[in-house]
Amino acid sequence: MNGRALGSGNRLMNYEQMLSDALDTVKREGRYRVFADVKRRRGAFPKAEVVKGEAAKQITVWCSNDYLGMGQHPKVLAAMHEAIDLVGAGSGGTRNIAGTTHYHVELERELADLHGKEMALLFTSAFVANEAALSTLATLFPGCVIFSDEKNHASMIAGIRNGRGPKQIFVHNDLADLEARLQKVPRDTPKIIAFESVYSMDGHVAPIAAICDLAEKYNALTYLDEVHAVGLYGPRGGGVAERDGVMHRIDIINGTLAKGFGVMGGYIAASKTLCDAIRSYAPGFIFTTSLAPAIAAGALASIRHLKSSNLEREQHQERARALKRRLAAADFPVISGPSHIVPVLVADPVRCKALTDVLLDRYGIYVQPINYPTVPRGTERLRLTPSPQHTDADMEHLVNALTDLWSQCPLALIESLAEAAE
Amino acid sequence: MNGRALGSGNRLMNYEQMLSDALDTVKREGRYRVFADVKRRRGAFPKAEVVKGEAAKQITVWCSNDYLGMGQHPKVLAAMHEAIDLVGAGSGGTRNIAGTTHYHVELERELADLHGKEMALLFTSAFVANEAALSTLATLFPGCVIFSDEKNHASMIAGIRNGRGPKQIFVHNDLADLEARLQKVPRDTPKIIAFESVYSMDGHVAPIAAICDLAEKYNALTYLDEVHAVGLYGPRGGGVAERDGVMHRIDIINGTLAKGFGVMGGYIAASKTLCDAIRSYAPGFIFTTSLAPAIAAGALASIRHLKSSNLEREQHQERARALKRRLAAADFPVISGPSHIVPVLVADPVRCKALTDVLLDRYGIYVQPINYPTVPRGTERLRLTPSPQHTDADMEHLVNALTDLWSQCPLALIESLAEAAE
Ligand SMILES: Cc1ncc(COP(=O)(O)O)c(C=O)c1O
Ligand SMILES: Cc1ncc(COP(=O)(O)O)c(C=O)c1O
Repeated sequence: MNGRALGSGNRLMNYEQMLSDALDTVKREGRYRVFADVKRRRGAFPKAEVVKGEAAKQITVWCSNDYLGMGQHPKVLAAMHEAIDLVGAGSGGTRNIAGTTHYHVELERELADLHGKEMALLFTSAFVANEAALSTLATLFPGCVIFSDEKNHASMIAGIRNGRGPKQIFVHNDLADLEARLQKVPRDTPKIIAFESVYSMDGHVAPIAAICDLAEKYNALTYLDEVHAVGLYGPRGGGVAERDGVMHRIDIINGTLAKGFGVMGGYIAASKTLCDAIRSYAPGFIFTTSLAPAIAAGALASIRHLKSSNLEREQHQERARALKRRLAAADFPVISGPSHIVPVLVADPVRCKALTDVLLDRYGIYVQPINYPTVPRGTERLRLTPSPQHTDADMEHLVNALTDLWSQCPLALIESLAEAAE
Repeated sequence: MNGRALGSGNRLMNYEQMLSDALDTVKREGRYRVFADVKRRRGAFPKAEVVKGEAAKQITVWCSNDYLGMGQHPKVLAAMHEAIDLVGAGSGGTRNIAGTTHYHVELERELADLHGKEMALLFTSAFVANEAALSTLATLFPGCVIFSDEKNHASMIAGIRNGRGPKQIFVHNDLADLEARLQKVPRDTPKIIAFESVYSMDGHVAPIAAICDLAEKYNALTYLDEVHAVGLYGPRGGGVAERDGVMHRIDIINGTLAKGFGVMGGYIAASKTLCDAIRSYAPGFIFTTSLAPAIAAGALASIRHLKSSNLEREQHQERARALKRRLAAADFPVISGPSHIVPVLVADPVRCKALTDVLLDRYGIYVQPINYPTVPRGTERLRLTPSPQHTDADMEHLVNALTDLWSQCPLALIESLAEAAE
């Protein structure tokens, strides 16, 4: 019965064959993904279990983007419980048709305040926020040229691509290249510079102030993705732009509620007119059920907490520095950067996958291999994300495990282990 | 401080002007949207409150897509509470990077079973599921022609557009037009017929079996959006295709967890190879945080309940028939259709908005005006969605209110009321 439609019968053989071929490509390149089935335990983060068949195995998660552990914070969980008790499960509608609850209204106000903007707009994710905002801006500003950092996230690339306007890809964080490109476009042509504050796979941080200088000089709008920075940087968690004192110079800020804030959802913050125009024109905002009220309530509690508490941010930075120090002392090739992200270069997709398989099976350490297309080929890596909840003992266990595998275990052995595991 | 970035300063005047002009267009056409700020109350659905400034007003919601009231079901809420207690708020990652929890795995299994397919894939919404699946299929089947019903939802249109392959728009539910278009494309060119089971703004239902006949005859895949049908039709809530006994003839089924199931999220169900290919190639699936575990848990409980209980579906159909009967008896222009959706034609955007304003202010009845671009200009309507929880008394109140306004209140009076309210 299962799969009678696609998967059997002559009619569909060709379609299935084309899809298999596409999957073979992924497998041949060592980038076929097997999702680990994780059972988190409230209060125990970063400890969790991985489920394989019937068995569950104790693990330490080293690759979560719940950077501060806010997904376990009592205030966040209490707010979610309360919202479920008060209003139920889903919102029951799009924002316009019965799906705007009081939680959505308050959350948008809180986000506008967080970023010092007139207004904020919620989306089901920061992916959708980027895609919807950038593609719609391209339509609202006819002829608009979008200047996009070459390392921008897939969601910005999708928005720029789907907007179908002209674009210029500039060299990563390279002001000279950006300026050379800005110079070539007439002053009165609309322009948007789209970039990220913290690049999540390398931990690089953009020269935000200098990019704002260029934007002013060449009459461009600035669009900043602070997805890996909101909650984590700035005195109130407004992001790197807040920390650097340049938040007011950014025209459109994009953020997520799913990483530093530990819940789910995304947003933009900008002027009232700009948000109102996106609200009125973007299909990805208009034609979809709004966030579940409990999600909005949890995010609201998280943002409010992190606006007034610096403790989590300080501990987070300390833990990241501590891990970098330990890895450097043990001579691992850590990609250097000023942020909380700790990437260790492996530079081979098969080895990267094999390493993480053995880390999980033998040491109970869960790190996902980061392979193409998430990073360029040849720069495959382990991406470690220490949180305030990772202890010194967790770090010692991790560095020891890596040392065992890296030095005692030549590539060939790792490969044979991985094969045996499959 | 607020809005210093966009909204003041010479640099940005032109940008703000362009956005204001775009908003003026929306306002001039009577389709500027003001979101009602709704406070649902658990256990009281369809009763709720609308918040205006400081005041809250008791209302009856007549336009929710929580069709069965599952967003208030004790089993759903209990499952969400339990998941929050067990694992916390957010998933903390993308599906591949620490964001696959046991709830996601179980929910995908349950959805595959619901539709009799080998596999299902979760997305953050059915909008994203449609966009990601259709745009990726267009890439995976080079040269693929997508045959799209002219009334397809914005999310399918987005997917087809962003896939950038050739397309053919066929007349709504018109088999002759569809066949004429299929005939013109060579047999070995890949083809997908994309359509909906229940068209949500009219309540029309597609001739699914006959479309499957054409798909077989012309070697096309079938892609069916059952967003307004899952949970609501078929002996286990598998949708209209299940009810009609043709679910196995559909290659790709798209559904939402946010309407009949009352929570949030979306999915596709199809063959293992097809789902695996989308899983491996679609940016909208890969590069975004997975659904919050509590959302997945709530949806799972809802689906399981509706698989074995027909009561809600029977009551729902009975209530829809009862409302249609009452409206017809009072001579309202109900757009006829065999589904649970009850659209009343107004055919003027300003009148439509004014009617709903007065219904809310004077009668505590909340219905959103459905105007362009959700429906074609000239077909503006009230879209009523009776649920099992709407009583005979609720219906009487609604029909009486509409009768007052429709007959005693000529257009001019409604307009002046609406102006006074603004
Ligand atoms: C830079 C960047 N922007 C946007 C997103 C999308 O955020 P969300 O998970 O809320 O969709 C991500 C990651 O998921 C990201 O890394
Ligand atoms: C036909 C149709 N498909 C897809 C969607 C999107 O579903 P979701 O709300 O889960 O994004 C909707 C409405 O929202 C719809 O009406």
